[in-house]
Amino acid sequence: MQSKKNISMSVIKRLPRYYRFLGNLGKKNIERISSLELSRQMGLTASQIRQDLNCFGGFGQQGYGYNVKMLYEEIGAILGVNNKNKTILIGTGNLGQAIARHMSFEMRGFNIIGIFDREDSLVGTELRGLRVQSTDSLESFCKENSPLVAVLCVPNTTETEELIDLLVDCGIKAFWNFTHIDIKAKYPDVCVENVHLSDSLMTLCYQVNMLKK
Amino acid sequence: MQSKKNISMSVIKRLPRYYRFLGNLGKKNIERISSLELSRQMGLTASQIRQDLNCFGGFGQQGYGYNVKMLYEEIGAILGVNNKNKTILIGTGNLGQAIARHMSFEMRGFNIIGIFDREDSLVGTELRGLRVQSTDSLESFCKENSPLVAVLCVPNTTETEELIDLLVDCGIKAFWNFTHIDIKAKYPDVCVENVHLSDSLMTLCYQVNMLKK
Repeated sequence: MQSKKNISMSVIKRLPRYYRFLGNLGKKNIERISSLELSRQMGLTASQIRQDLNCFGGFGQQGYGYNVKMLYEEIGAILGVNNKNKTILIGTGNLGQAIARHMSFEMRGFNIIGIFDREDSLVGTELRGLRVQSTDSLESFCKENSPLVAVLCVPNTTETEELIDLLVDCGIKAFWNFTHIDIKAKYPDVCVENVHLSDSLMTLCYQVNMLKK
Repeated sequence: MQSKKNISMSVIKRLPRYYRFLGNLGKKNIERISSLELSRQMGLTASQIRQDLNCFGGFGQQGYGYNVKMLYEEIGAILGVNNKNKTILIGTGNLGQAIARHMSFEMRGFNIIGIFDREDSLVGTELRGLRVQSTDSLESFCKENSPLVAVLCVPNTTETEELIDLLVDCGIKAFWNFTHIDIKAKYPDVCVENVHLSDSLMTLCYQVNMLKK
């Protein structure tokens, strides 16, 4: 396989989609697929697909198409889905509870080792088999367990900005960020994936408006 | 204001972010902001901001910057946040419940008028002040109430594919889609905003891997 450095973020962002599609093909016992057929199903051009996969050394054989299982496993390895990155989740309101219960973290490369909330009423409850801890104990927990990743399901407040400072101080290197706080602006070296649900909803609103014109 | 048609999707997708930023500036009682200062805070170039806002006729005055409140309201109007698009939500598992409780639909242009689940144990429960109805009654509900938008918080199954067929038949023109089903592939004229949480998580996984190399 070629070097994996310097791959553009737009290619990276398509990899999970390839991974999902190939996983579904595998479940249907499909063993091989041509880039043409894959492109048809994914709504990309065949040339786009060849280009994307060539970034990682290419897995196709001219005239034979792609081996579905092999490509699925290779992309999984590139994404690192078999890792067990130590992860903490902070905020167990509606959203945090849903994310904790709904997401298959362990199939995506993450291992949730601690869940935190600042509300006394939520501390001590159980979520995902873990006891929710007070955010007061975050610092000592991080010292002891060295988590690398934090899932932020907390409100957009100045207290959350302070929480982010604390987490970076404690060695957190990556955030799955459901808040609107721009973590990258202050910490450019930290990895951040933002999920801006309300932005997505407003984009849909614009499209619905356009329908009516 | 200029014509709003033919604005590229990449500009549209940035509008909610402008809207959020300007809303926060307004809360801090900031009345004017230069494109330079706005660009600094948003991590875009000043020229990018001027270009984006010019798509809609521009709201700045050379040398005076932007009027925060006016620009906020104009972008809100472009996005259509004051609309009350009739919306139904389907699926009240962990994710559906969180989305129903957590999101400010009515501040983003949507009015949730019905909530549905196919599980008998969930039908009849209350969510967001509405009684959860059986998906069996979807068709008659749509005939009577003509919702335009559906929020899909259901599993990725063939039954969900059939559900989407039914919804499109019933007049649904826009989906906020939390499933992995590619609605656009089958219904290119329908508006779709996909929220692929697991793709976002895997993209983060890749970035965390790169940290270790």
